[in-house]
Amino acid sequence: MGVLDLLTQETIGFACLPKANSAWILLGIPFDSTTTYKPGTRFAPDSVRSASCNLEFYSLLTGLILEDDRINDLGNLVLPPGEVEKSLRIIEDAVRELRGLYPDALTIFIGGEHLITYPIVKAFDKTIDTLVVFDAHLDLRSEYLSSKYNHATFLRRIVEELDLNVLHIGSRAYSKDELDYVKSSGLKVLNILESKDLEAVGKEFENLGRTYVSLDIDVIDPAYAPGVGNPEPLGMDPLTLLKVVKKIFESNNKVIGFDLVEVNPLVDVNDVTSALAGKIILEVMAMDKAFRNTKWL
Amino acid sequence: MGVLDLLTQETIGFACLPKANSAWILLGIPFDSTTTYKPGTRFAPDSVRSASCNLEFYSLLTGLILEDDRINDLGNLVLPPGEVEKSLRIIEDAVRELRGLYPDALTIFIGGEHLITYPIVKAFDKTIDTLVVFDAHLDLRSEYLSSKYNHATFLRRIVEELDLNVLHIGSRAYSKDELDYVKSSGLKVLNILESKDLEAVGKEFENLGRTYVSLDIDVIDPAYAPGVGNPEPLGMDPLTLLKVVKKIFESNNKVIGFDLVEVNPLVDVNDVTSALAGKIILEVMAMDKAFRNTKWL
Amino acid sequence: MGVLDLLTQETIGFACLPKANSAWILLGIPFDSTTTYKPGTRFAPDSVRSASCNLEFYSLLTGLILEDDRINDLGNLVLPPGEVEKSLRIIEDAVRELRGLYPDALTIFIGGEHLITYPIVKAFDKTIDTLVVFDAHLDLRSEYLSSKYNHATFLRRIVEELDLNVLHIGSRAYSKDELDYVKSSGLKVLNILESKDLEAVGKEFENLGRTYVSLDIDVIDPAYAPGVGNPEPLGMDPLTLLKVVKKIFESNNKVIGFDLVEVNPLVDVNDVTSALAGKIILEVMAMDKAFRNTKWL
Amino acid sequence: MGVLDLLTQETIGFACLPKANSAWILLGIPFDSTTTYKPGTRFAPDSVRSASCNLEFYSLLTGLILEDDRINDLGNLVLPPGEVEKSLRIIEDAVRELRGLYPDALTIFIGGEHLITYPIVKAFDKTIDTLVVFDAHLDLRSEYLSSKYNHATFLRRIVEELDLNVLHIGSRAYSKDELDYVKSSGLKVLNILESKDLEAVGKEFENLGRTYVSLDIDVIDPAYAPGVGNPEPLGMDPLTLLKVVKKIFESNNKVIGFDLVEVNPLVDVNDVTSALAGKIILEVMAMDKAFRNTKWL
Amino acid sequence: MGVLDLLTQETIGFACLPKANSAWILLGIPFDSTTTYKPGTRFAPDSVRSASCNLEFYSLLTGLILEDDRINDLGNLVLPPGEVEKSLRIIEDAVRELRGLYPDALTIFIGGEHLITYPIVKAFDKTIDTLVVFDAHLDLRSEYLSSKYNHATFLRRIVEELDLNVLHIGSRAYSKDELDYVKSSGLKVLNILESKDLEAVGKEFENLGRTYVSLDIDVIDPAYAPGVGNPEPLGMDPLTLLKVVKKIFESNNKVIGFDLVEVNPLVDVNDVTSALAGKIILEVMAMDKAFRNTKWL
Amino acid sequence: MGVLDLLTQETIGFACLPKANSAWILLGIPFDSTTTYKPGTRFAPDSVRSASCNLEFYSLLTGLILEDDRINDLGNLVLPPGEVEKSLRIIEDAVRELRGLYPDALTIFIGGEHLITYPIVKAFDKTIDTLVVFDAHLDLRSEYLSSKYNHATFLRRIVEELDLNVLHIGSRAYSKDELDYVKSSGLKVLNILESKDLEAVGKEFENLGRTYVSLDIDVIDPAYAPGVGNPEPLGMDPLTLLKVVKKIFESNNKVIGFDLVEVNPLVDVNDVTSALAGKIILEVMAMDKAFRNTKWL
Ligand SMILES: [Mn+2]
Ligand SMILES: [Mn+2]
Ligand SMILES: [Mn+2]
Ligand SMILES: [Mn+2]
Ligand SMILES: [Mn+2]
Ligand SMILES: [Mn+2]
Ligand SMILES: [Mn+2]
Ligand SMILES: [Mn+2]
Ligand SMILES: [Mn+2]
Ligand SMILES: [Mn+2]
Ligand SMILES: [Mn+2]
Ligand SMILES: [Mn+2]
Repeated sequence: MGVLDLLTQETIGFACLPKANSAWILLGIPFDSTTTYKPGTRFAPDSVRSASCNLEFYSLLTGLILEDDRINDLGNLVLPPGEVEKSLRIIEDAVRELRGLYPDALTIFIGGEHLITYPIVKAFDKTIDTLVVFDAHLDLRSEYLSSKYNHATFLRRIVEELDLNVLHIGSRAYSKDELDYVKSSGLKVLNILESKDLEAVGKEFENLGRTYVSLDIDVIDPAYAPGVGNPEPLGMDPLTLLKVVKKIFESNNKVIGFDLVEVNPLVDVNDVTSALAGKIILEVMAMDKAFRNTKWL
Repeated sequence: MGVLDLLTQETIGFACLPKANSAWILLGIPFDSTTTYKPGTRFAPDSVRSASCNLEFYSLLTGLILEDDRINDLGNLVLPPGEVEKSLRIIEDAVRELRGLYPDALTIFIGGEHLITYPIVKAFDKTIDTLVVFDAHLDLRSEYLSSKYNHATFLRRIVEELDLNVLHIGSRAYSKDELDYVKSSGLKVLNILESKDLEAVGKEFENLGRTYVSLDIDVIDPAYAPGVGNPEPLGMDPLTLLKVVKKIFESNNKVIGFDLVEVNPLVDVNDVTSALAGKIILEVMAMDKAFRNTKWL
Repeated sequence: MGVLDLLTQETIGFACLPKANSAWILLGIPFDSTTTYKPGTRFAPDSVRSASCNLEFYSLLTGLILEDDRINDLGNLVLPPGEVEKSLRIIEDAVRELRGLYPDALTIFIGGEHLITYPIVKAFDKTIDTLVVFDAHLDLRSEYLSSKYNHATFLRRIVEELDLNVLHIGSRAYSKDELDYVKSSGLKVLNILESKDLEAVGKEFENLGRTYVSLDIDVIDPAYAPGVGNPEPLGMDPLTLLKVVKKIFESNNKVIGFDLVEVNPLVDVNDVTSALAGKIILEVMAMDKAFRNTKWL
Repeated sequence: MGVLDLLTQETIGFACLPKANSAWILLGIPFDSTTTYKPGTRFAPDSVRSASCNLEFYSLLTGLILEDDRINDLGNLVLPPGEVEKSLRIIEDAVRELRGLYPDALTIFIGGEHLITYPIVKAFDKTIDTLVVFDAHLDLRSEYLSSKYNHATFLRRIVEELDLNVLHIGSRAYSKDELDYVKSSGLKVLNILESKDLEAVGKEFENLGRTYVSLDIDVIDPAYAPGVGNPEPLGMDPLTLLKVVKKIFESNNKVIGFDLVEVNPLVDVNDVTSALAGKIILEVMAMDKAFRNTKWL
Repeated sequence: MGVLDLLTQETIGFACLPKANSAWILLGIPFDSTTTYKPGTRFAPDSVRSASCNLEFYSLLTGLILEDDRINDLGNLVLPPGEVEKSLRIIEDAVRELRGLYPDALTIFIGGEHLITYPIVKAFDKTIDTLVVFDAHLDLRSEYLSSKYNHATFLRRIVEELDLNVLHIGSRAYSKDELDYVKSSGLKVLNILESKDLEAVGKEFENLGRTYVSLDIDVIDPAYAPGVGNPEPLGMDPLTLLKVVKKIFESNNKVIGFDLVEVNPLVDVNDVTSALAGKIILEVMAMDKAFRNTKWL
Repeated sequence: MGVLDLLTQETIGFACLPKANSAWILLGIPFDSTTTYKPGTRFAPDSVRSASCNLEFYSLLTGLILEDDRINDLGNLVLPPGEVEKSLRIIEDAVRELRGLYPDALTIFIGGEHLITYPIVKAFDKTIDTLVVFDAHLDLRSEYLSSKYNHATFLRRIVEELDLNVLHIGSRAYSKDELDYVKSSGLKVLNILESKDLEAVGKEFENLGRTYVSLDIDVIDPAYAPGVGNPEPLGMDPLTLLKVVKKIFESNNKVIGFDLVEVNPLVDVNDVTSALAGKIILEVMAMDKAFRNTKWL
């Protein structure tokens, strides 16, 4: 028995879709141990699943209907409370195992906090050419409150430790340390103002290769996504975001992984942030279906 | 004594406007018996009335001020709890009586759930040429969870049973069944992306004739209207909606009825959805006043 | 296939207990179509199940630990939205089937509103000697707002239509109609002040025979159970309630059915009412286990 | 010792910035005694300070980072409960003293309700050439419910009693009385529709001279700023607002005072309105820094 | 026309009881201008009226049913925002007029904050022999934050300015200043521990004469009444409170006025505090009815 | 410079008391990294401090007034996010340093989660004779979800690793593992039913010696303390709790440390749990003052 069998808890299926073999694998990662402000993203995997049961399966961006589709929703990882290092290892092991079992699937993760992207991406073992991050924040601090591995530093760790291209979209909140690092490292960062120019952004998406997309829900304006630990004003609207994401799928790239992190149901309003997150995942599934066979990979 | 006398409960007047004879009749219909997700729209008539007391009477879309106007607010219907069939009959009878008493008025209804539009429109007895529906959803299912008359099927029933044109605006959430029906029936549906093109939408509004407008508040994005049973992302913004509605009044049509449904005060935030609903009704009243005498009817 | 197979939706198991054959059958009945004030009890079965996952399995009233026990949690009934008559029939059919399948089990129901007790008790087909009701209200109106079958009349219907003894405990809110009926009918009613006298109440419990217990959570004071549609002050505290319930089990009676109704998660605080409901069900299971073999039946 | 020493209560520093001598003076004025609808703006100074601790110090509008800057946060005024006249006098005295102590600073005030702008502006003693007000409402009533000095009349008092130009931006809710006054007085009012035309608004900003900017947060749409006493639909979005504000700083004017009023933390959601208010103040500080030395004054 | 006609706003009747001539006069006084912590008691009169519509009319303490009774609910006073002195004068004038019009009625007031008791009691013009106050706090400060007339000083003002006996019950939060004053003035104060001894309290109630009862809802424990501006732990439970109040009516006294103050619907939970307040008023009405004709007065 | 200087963040003083040298040291420990259900206790130190500013300084249990007293509130520890081991070490070091600096003070800690008691007690370095724990739960698991050091195991670690007596009071939720351990280890546990018998509990308090009291707020019933991560029904009421605590001070013991943990402001109602926690701390300070000089130690 693998890590996944040992450490996974069954849940209702995403959007109440029947669970079955599918081109889409879903895994919930209820990890929020390094959150510094309002915690609670641990409840997102279940909350997003359940809010999505009340959505229809039509995809506005592609025109497809997913009503007769299936999803391979594996449930949630079970993680030892307060043990960050051990948790990161479990996440990494589980994702590696999952990649071995379903090498051709689009693997989708619901966080949890943004730090989970670090072990996930690591587990993809150099099969990722480009990591595209949507986030209000850069998460590029070299360390934060004497801690090296947390939600505010995860991308710095990835850049330092792993060998892949990073494209960062939608940011509008930097520390000086981060801004300096961006300048010195030559990291590609499109801030929120630049991110809304669909054509310009589209140009950056040519030839990303095998792509992993990490979406911190706070890239969206708090008006649309109030249920986040750290609401940052001046964000993107959901339709623009989806159009940008669609450009990744349309272009000559292959999306092999996707995560949606930082939804916090504990501070949400009428579950609108969970519903929005579910909608985004449904649209990503539809985009994958629409453009899957057009790829060279 | 008619149904209205027997089955109406007095309330404060809409927007705290003095109650008196007027070109506008208002009736609250606190019916939400077939709601499938979060119930509570029964509280909307009172909540919208009361939140509107804190609005000013200036209309941004027309430049009119309604401060010295009156409204004929008849209060709320009293309906037997849990008796859908009987309730629909009471609604239909009350609206027919009301139409008899005030044939030239613009009759405005505050729901309650969307199913109320079915008995209302029926009671207009073929005096409606076109039904314009604003909604995130189509509500065109042939049946839902073995029930034929509910919020998710009401428009299908209208299309099947009544003889009028339907124009549907703002949708973005379909079931397969509904999409198939739209295709086979030739129903005119402008989805949310098409609905924002004011000029294109305007063209559809030429010669609607005697028009009834039904506005499901969830056509608006949850950012602006979080207090709804089923928040559906990617919606319209309120100003665009009002501009579209204004085009109906400006064009060569006569609006004879209007309902605003699906506001749910139980899950709202600081009553912003109730306030927005009140604002929309005030603007509709102002549009009616501004364009009333320009009509051929 | 029976009604239960056709109309049941799977859920997580109560208190996250493993689902298996057991002396306890659980069925969720998310029905709240006749609620007149704040609706939302439809969410209680899932909310109580989930809040109970964070409770320990020790029973304070009996000293037993249920950690290694199993429960036969059948999930929730699926009911047609807004169709009261059809829903009552489905509930009755499902319960009758369930009684046929598990004649020796203690069947436990989580509502939903109090009206569900009517079809449940009917389905027990004269196997109930005494119905013990805990409720702040009598629910004995002859009709309510022109409706005969609803949460405010259900007990009147049972008394009129079925042949069993009724013992009512904890009431403190009567209409004149109800009080007159109690006097004329000779129904046994212990009001809230009398209900706290454990010894006196105990006397009433001698020889109830085969007993069905229906517990409207609003019998408890809103301080302990704020999440109810109609909070009624001056109620019982949870420990006294459990001691009273225990007396039923201790005495020479056999409890064959139990329902817990009227929890409303939509208006609750930190899920405390759901947690309390879960605790009560756990204690009832423990009482059943503790006293099961001491019965003559 | 001056009024400020006697009547100020120490708090944490705005955005957790170190308190020190600085070009920016901050004073909290927790006054909401004349609020007519939902009260609670008294909690805004502390709530805005604390929500801002979780913002980064990067300014999107100017590209500056304020991380190494300081602020002279003087804390909150202590005001006698329920004594409006005395409170207005204390505010006026404190601001006058503050202007004497820091004549070259940009003085920033966090309300409290909009009436505080009246004594503040008075205390600037004719050093203000133009008062720019952002507000959904005109606050120009001649009196309100028999009271002359309150949140709904403050601007009328300023226009009548003080000698300065007024430019009003973003309005969309007028009483007849106010609209008549605007017409007769020739006050410059750009309503919400006109306010979004950056170029046109920019023209109005040429040569304002010494400028005081008063920002009622309800000028922003309730989607972005739900935590206000009187949410008024159809408002501005935060980015447009900041671009308009920036135009004031860019043009040939000198901003000498700024207040942000009417944030109500008691009815907010996840503190998003407080966070937005903090962001606006940070951007205003950055604009001041960016354009300070380009001024002729 | 009197003050009452000029300055009263119509509302729904208390508990939805029909409005008619009656032995009970009700007046809402939505005044909260001197509140120092969380404001919002201005919403209590309407909130208590509306929550009471869902209560039954049975009185547990007396066994009476008030279903066929009437109430003379005069609506709410309209007060100038932020004008404390003027407001106190209006309250006093209105109450004096009301006493002239209905000299034999039991006059009931719903606040608003506790300061309203000052002008009310003044308007009773020496017809009160004893003022019985239920409150967690003494409200006996000589002044508070430089203000002499506010919720924290009102009782001191009454003791100093008016000639009546004061009996204070249920307190548990004193300032040193207040405790010293109690000692020096010889005021009769039963703290919360002493207040629960029904017999001892009963003794204090012999021969109070013409009695006015003022009930600050925070005398009750926050568990039962969370919706208050200043929740003070260790309070009374509602049943004990009602038993104590009943003793006043049972004894040889005549209750001529009653107020219930400090309910704050803005911070309540599921309106439980409003419902409790409504219940208390209903019980007080029933006590008045039960013992009215047994009096010597 | 010591750990305390390096790692402490200044805050407002507890209950807005002036900070100064005092017999009472206060330290906030915003640590909640191992919480398994609803997180948020990290906000308790600030929330309890601020809610306490609205309490009076009278102590009901002792009759003392603390208005002129001082407190040495050192602020909050700053801990590395997600680093449990490092955090525990910092807590231990800080407490040891604090004990060295203020050997005669009563040191008071506000958590944070219950795990903080482990490093605190360790840092007292065998100066504790008895640890008295108030808790709904035993926190005696040998491990929890593969983690050895967390809120559910902390007391097991203390019992296993440290040499002191443990007295556990108020429990009502056990796992089988814990119950077995209690039996085998002979730990003294008074469950909730036994804990209410003041006399019996008092007997256990004779000769505890140097005592540390740890109070998990969930020992109190959720009616009084809803703002906790894991509300457990059937708890103690606050007055009984304080009487029990007082017995510790009255008896021949010396209380040298006290912590109050598990308050969760994120899920509280109107801050009543924070206010209650503040009240408990004030009463503990008063008890310490009242009985300090009666000790032999
Ligand atoms: Mn991030
Ligand atoms: Mn982020
Ligand atoms: Mn609809
Ligand atoms: Mn809809
Ligand atoms: Mn019931
Ligand atoms: Mn009931
Ligand atoms: Mn304003
Ligand atoms: Mn405004
Ligand atoms: Mn008071
Ligand atoms: Mn009080
Ligand atoms: Mn604990
Ligand atoms: Mn605990």
